[in-house]
Amino acid sequence: MKPTNEFTWRRHYETVRKRSLMLAEPLSSEDCGAQSMPDASPVKWHLAHTTWFFETFILEPMEAQFAPFHPAFRVLFNSYYNGIGERHPRAQRGLLTRPSLQEVRAYRANVDQRIARLLAEHADDEALAALIELGLQHEQQHQELILTDVKHMLAQNALYPTYSSASPAAPDTPPAAGWVDFAGALTEIGHDGDGFCFDNELPRHRQYVLPFALAARLVTNAEYLEFIDAGGYRDPALWLSEGWDQVCALSLAHPLYWRRDAHGSWHEFTLHGMGPLAPDLPAVHLSLYEANAYAHWRGARLPTEAEWELAARGADRGLHQMFGHCWQWTSSSYSPYPGYATAPGALGEYNGKFMLNQYVLRGSSKATPPGHARASYRNFFPAGARWQFTGIRLAK
Amino acid sequence: MKPTNEFTWRRHYETVRKRSLMLAEPLSSEDCGAQSMPDASPVKWHLAHTTWFFETFILEPMEAQFAPFHPAFRVLFNSYYNGIGERHPRAQRGLLTRPSLQEVRAYRANVDQRIARLLAEHADDEALAALIELGLQHEQQHQELILTDVKHMLAQNALYPTYSSASPAAPDTPPAAGWVDFAGALTEIGHDGDGFCFDNELPRHRQYVLPFALAARLVTNAEYLEFIDAGGYRDPALWLSEGWDQVCALSLAHPLYWRRDAHGSWHEFTLHGMGPLAPDLPAVHLSLYEANAYAHWRGARLPTEAEWELAARGADRGLHQMFGHCWQWTSSSYSPYPGYATAPGALGEYNGKFMLNQYVLRGSSKATPPGHARASYRNFFPAGARWQFTGIRLAK
Amino acid sequence: MKPTNEFTWRRHYETVRKRSLMLAEPLSSEDCGAQSMPDASPVKWHLAHTTWFFETFILEPMEAQFAPFHPAFRVLFNSYYNGIGERHPRAQRGLLTRPSLQEVRAYRANVDQRIARLLAEHADDEALAALIELGLQHEQQHQELILTDVKHMLAQNALYPTYSSASPAAPDTPPAAGWVDFAGALTEIGHDGDGFCFDNELPRHRQYVLPFALAARLVTNAEYLEFIDAGGYRDPALWLSEGWDQVCALSLAHPLYWRRDAHGSWHEFTLHGMGPLAPDLPAVHLSLYEANAYAHWRGARLPTEAEWELAARGADRGLHQMFGHCWQWTSSSYSPYPGYATAPGALGEYNGKFMLNQYVLRGSSKATPPGHARASYRNFFPAGARWQFTGIRLAK
Amino acid sequence: MKPTNEFTWRRHYETVRKRSLMLAEPLSSEDCGAQSMPDASPVKWHLAHTTWFFETFILEPMEAQFAPFHPAFRVLFNSYYNGIGERHPRAQRGLLTRPSLQEVRAYRANVDQRIARLLAEHADDEALAALIELGLQHEQQHQELILTDVKHMLAQNALYPTYSSASPAAPDTPPAAGWVDFAGALTEIGHDGDGFCFDNELPRHRQYVLPFALAARLVTNAEYLEFIDAGGYRDPALWLSEGWDQVCALSLAHPLYWRRDAHGSWHEFTLHGMGPLAPDLPAVHLSLYEANAYAHWRGARLPTEAEWELAARGADRGLHQMFGHCWQWTSSSYSPYPGYATAPGALGEYNGKFMLNQYVLRGSSKATPPGHARASYRNFFPAGARWQFTGIRLAK
Repeated sequence: MKPTNEFTWRRHYETVRKRSLMLAEPLSSEDCGAQSMPDASPVKWHLAHTTWFFETFILEPMEAQFAPFHPAFRVLFNSYYNGIGERHPRAQRGLLTRPSLQEVRAYRANVDQRIARLLAEHADDEALAALIELGLQHEQQHQELILTDVKHMLAQNALYPTYSSASPAAPDTPPAAGWVDFAGALTEIGHDGDGFCFDNELPRHRQYVLPFALAARLVTNAEYLEFIDAGGYRDPALWLSEGWDQVCALSLAHPLYWRRDAHGSWHEFTLHGMGPLAPDLPAVHLSLYEANAYAHWRGARLPTEAEWELAARGADRGLHQMFGHCWQWTSSSYSPYPGYATAPGALGEYNGKFMLNQYVLRGSSKATPPGHARASYRNFFPAGARWQFTGIRLAK
Repeated sequence: MKPTNEFTWRRHYETVRKRSLMLAEPLSSEDCGAQSMPDASPVKWHLAHTTWFFETFILEPMEAQFAPFHPAFRVLFNSYYNGIGERHPRAQRGLLTRPSLQEVRAYRANVDQRIARLLAEHADDEALAALIELGLQHEQQHQELILTDVKHMLAQNALYPTYSSASPAAPDTPPAAGWVDFAGALTEIGHDGDGFCFDNELPRHRQYVLPFALAARLVTNAEYLEFIDAGGYRDPALWLSEGWDQVCALSLAHPLYWRRDAHGSWHEFTLHGMGPLAPDLPAVHLSLYEANAYAHWRGARLPTEAEWELAARGADRGLHQMFGHCWQWTSSSYSPYPGYATAPGALGEYNGKFMLNQYVLRGSSKATPPGHARASYRNFFPAGARWQFTGIRLAK
Repeated sequence: MKPTNEFTWRRHYETVRKRSLMLAEPLSSEDCGAQSMPDASPVKWHLAHTTWFFETFILEPMEAQFAPFHPAFRVLFNSYYNGIGERHPRAQRGLLTRPSLQEVRAYRANVDQRIARLLAEHADDEALAALIELGLQHEQQHQELILTDVKHMLAQNALYPTYSSASPAAPDTPPAAGWVDFAGALTEIGHDGDGFCFDNELPRHRQYVLPFALAARLVTNAEYLEFIDAGGYRDPALWLSEGWDQVCALSLAHPLYWRRDAHGSWHEFTLHGMGPLAPDLPAVHLSLYEANAYAHWRGARLPTEAEWELAARGADRGLHQMFGHCWQWTSSSYSPYPGYATAPGALGEYNGKFMLNQYVLRGSSKATPPGHARASYRNFFPAGARWQFTGIRLAK
Repeated sequence: MKPTNEFTWRRHYETVRKRSLMLAEPLSSEDCGAQSMPDASPVKWHLAHTTWFFETFILEPMEAQFAPFHPAFRVLFNSYYNGIGERHPRAQRGLLTRPSLQEVRAYRANVDQRIARLLAEHADDEALAALIELGLQHEQQHQELILTDVKHMLAQNALYPTYSSASPAAPDTPPAAGWVDFAGALTEIGHDGDGFCFDNELPRHRQYVLPFALAARLVTNAEYLEFIDAGGYRDPALWLSEGWDQVCALSLAHPLYWRRDAHGSWHEFTLHGMGPLAPDLPAVHLSLYEANAYAHWRGARLPTEAEWELAARGADRGLHQMFGHCWQWTSSSYSPYPGYATAPGALGEYNGKFMLNQYVLRGSSKATPPGHARASYRNFFPAGARWQFTGIRLAK
């Protein structure tokens, strides 16, 4: 994951960038333009915004004769960087029928070419390499969002279109349930080593963790169904106050993409379309409210992010499904590590300003790009978010 | 406008239906899919809904072996007919990336072919002819909406894309201003004669109209600018209470598509893109609130719909721009004529259930299809609507 | 109703003003301070605002050495007169715990004394007399609102407190049902004669009315219950589109103050508290939506305001309950009569600016002060309003 | 604070309960009934709810022949206990004009008498003593809310009424500014000792705290004014993303109760009315957003709750204003301590269900009742709350 010279960087850059286009392949230009809610963005917008990131934070400061690909794109594809200036309203990204998907591809090709030139000219520039890496990690984050956002959009359509026409792989038998115990420890939390990390994983710092146990695997659909059948969505005593408000306001009775047919059978909408609920797969698309209510009902709790990270570093010790299945809610509010400092300039807005009223998720999901996960990675979403691949690992 | 046999009907049908596709021609499939607000619909949705109308109200009851083109389309493309059943949520029409524009074209072709077969088989069926005519008039209404809705959508984009790349025709010198007097009369209002009309134009009935005068032409951009420059948007005394609320809530200071550049010059967004404001053209995209405040400021008023219709029947008497420029707000609330009765079944929902809290507009606009206008035609919109081609003819 | 000199005016003034205080008598100062919704005002606010009206529109222009009772009251008790200046936010009138009810009484006494002095000094000033009369008519309008607003407020309380501890009078047997026919006529509509009227009843003008029939009496609770039992609140075909939206959004199933107990018996909350529904009384607290749906279901319609007025002028002809029971919805949108002109200055805001998206009610209710009703009187409310004493007289 | 027998408990009970009535003394019954926003409650409601707490959690389970004072009060004065049943809607507490303030006083007297009887009968019942203590601590929490809520209500009134007619005490010179250093430590956090604490202060547990420094005193009005004058409310780079959204949505430019007069002088509304801003007093009524932006601008940060508690235990070491001035925002999200367990039954809803999307405040304010503060006390509010006595102590 750590390229060491121009050619390796170039190959790495090309690989990651191509993957974004590959994810858009099964979609029509109409599919790529629609936005299903303010929290989600059109696929085309993701393709353009990730390109804008390279143009704004690398080409603009480093190209000798920088001229923007299109002056209006500075506004259209700025996500949330006040330091860069005005932005197109977030909730109206689905109205950007121009530029077309084809023009966005041309934008990508143009920026890619110029990045390649910069890499050739500044082969040994470590600052450039660091920015390229940040841009690629950023693009990988959006690759996951491309899948979650398009899934949400397709789910609004009564035709329940499939994203992928391949049959879903038959799920394996889930690992055996059980608990794995960990001793208390004055430990170090946060990223270490040479590889890339985001600023929110730093600084590595001391933290005392009390003895705890983690569930050996994720909660399955079958287990979550027991919660539903036991009246979990009807008992306020199981829920956080805000969670119960959401249950009542939205009349929630099951996870986001579950549907019950006229015969009482449960189905789930996935990127493969609508199909029977797979009992052995991890339950996903759960909010922190749902995760917390489920844990309460089981007489357990959610792990803290420190517990999760400590456990993940010794992951050979009986834990399954830590990565690659779904993001796992923790009870930890997303806040800066002691000594955390934001980068200067607009890039300082990348993470720091969101460290409030969001909760940390650990692990990675089946939508996370290969090589993007690590034990210290801190994903975060508001407690009510349900459209991400989010699930439950119990602790006690 | 009244075809008399199969071949004429068939030609009429083909002409109107082709015109809808022709209106979509300058647009990409992305343009055709986006929805800028709940009141407006995507072009693709208009193309499908008008087809659904023929399928639902003609093919379904009349085809011997009727099968729907696609069962889900019954829900997806139902606009507001409770009598037909469920509907896709109005505000989410922009999320229907499937069916694709190409599939909607195939849907149109299929229905067109089946309508042609029906026409051949039932050449003398007057009930069929009446339904065909209703379907075509309905489609013409949507042809105007295609233009107003796509204009609104393009206007949300900082690129201000053009719908039509042709240069706008240089406007003629406007007709001379002035007043045309009409005597009071116990007159007949409502449609008469053999041609088509909507049910809301009936029954023709007696109404007493007091003496009045109508302005010989529409209010121009230059005249409306005088209202702005005189502080019209800052003086609550000129406005209806609801209108002033809208001015304050949305910080209104000019018509919907006007923009003032850094040098103080006014520009207007049209289907030809952003260009300098044309002083002699009729002012358009005005709400009834704006029309009323302007009239108040001029010491005049808006006409009633009976006055307008009475005048339009003697339109050789000095009145200009009654048709083909913009819809003209009247002070008349949209309500049923005495003795009005809705059709039985779901088609009864076409007009009657909207006869409340809307106001009548008369005339027609430059976006109205040829042959669609007449003196008794009753268009209607809520008082705050600004995205239609709506303007002002004064009365006193 | 038309006093002719100082002493008569003075007595009339005192009578009307005392009646407001009398209406507040059964209420505590706490009751008088609360506001149940933005459309309703606290009783204390009504008592102060009606006094502000006399102070602002009579004392301020006519007193030689005018000084306000309290400078802040100009803002606190201005209802909607932009011409007077700033206003306390309408939805927050319930937060005005100061001035206290006692201070508002002192405000009333002070203004009453000064008005008495003015009347003594300007015994023959017709302009003063006209303003006094307007102020008293205004106060009478608020006397009805005092009752409707306090009823709405008390109804929010699970204790269902009574406003009046007297037992409600046993209702008489209702008049016989039936229809009264009227011939078509080119008639005059609007106020005539010498007595007071509001500007919205003028000018009297010609109008052609087609032949029609009015129901001899109002719709009773028992009759409205038949509509409910027949599924009236579940059939969209009976409702105007906006009305059906309200039914769905608020899950409406019966009139505002009806409740069904565990045994299925209907009760109604009145100013006497919660009691069994009286089948023979006119059904009240109905919106125009409900009135219209009911009429539709009965195969009838609502009268126009011209029909109602024409009928009321010949009220000896078999019509019952035209006045003193409940306001009767008409199908007429509230709009200016031909030639209507607003008064100059802030008083011009009294009526004119509300002539949009409201509907006319005719007659008067049991809460209307004695002497305040007449055939030409135009009451008006938005179609969805349910907290007034509003009911149904059918027409056909 | 820990009474040891019946007589001491009784005296303690009487003292605390009387203090609530004493706080309502300067207010009229109208003042006591109004509710300025859903987050705040009327004073009368606080007086009744605290009584309901004793009735519901002590009298009902312990009285042999329990009968409620009024059956409807169970619903009217239940705050948020789903386990007890239905509740009057929170946003409509201002509509409860009945029971009157006098009836609520009678309710208080009745419950007080019955509690006294229980205390006499069960002199040695430790469970009863514990519940009495919880009820009194609960009442003390509401005593602070009585002051913050009535202040917010009075501030909505353009008359800016005073709560207390006494002159505010002239502020002392503030303590000298500076930093107090603390070494890192593996320490114990949470309540210890014999005295009362809420369940959220338990269990006491180990936590590692890195070396840190706390400001020796609170941020003053003069210091906060420097932030304003330096453009603090106009620079998004200083704010958390949610905070900047609030600044923009509400057009914030200063603390909640500050006003700038026409001459540019700053004034502040306090319980003594509107007066000149006191530069040396601690800045109060700040949200966590404002506190965080201020700290960012000073190059500092907010303390964690563990840091604050650790420091408070050694408060002889140079720290001023830890208690009795204002609550001090920490950067710690309100979450359960490791091993935290809620009480069984409805009382379990007291704290636990709110442990999400709220932030911890430490210390106490000038509105906190005597004896109610301690180093382990965890107050909590949402980040945007501004109507509490909340201020800033910096850390680094």
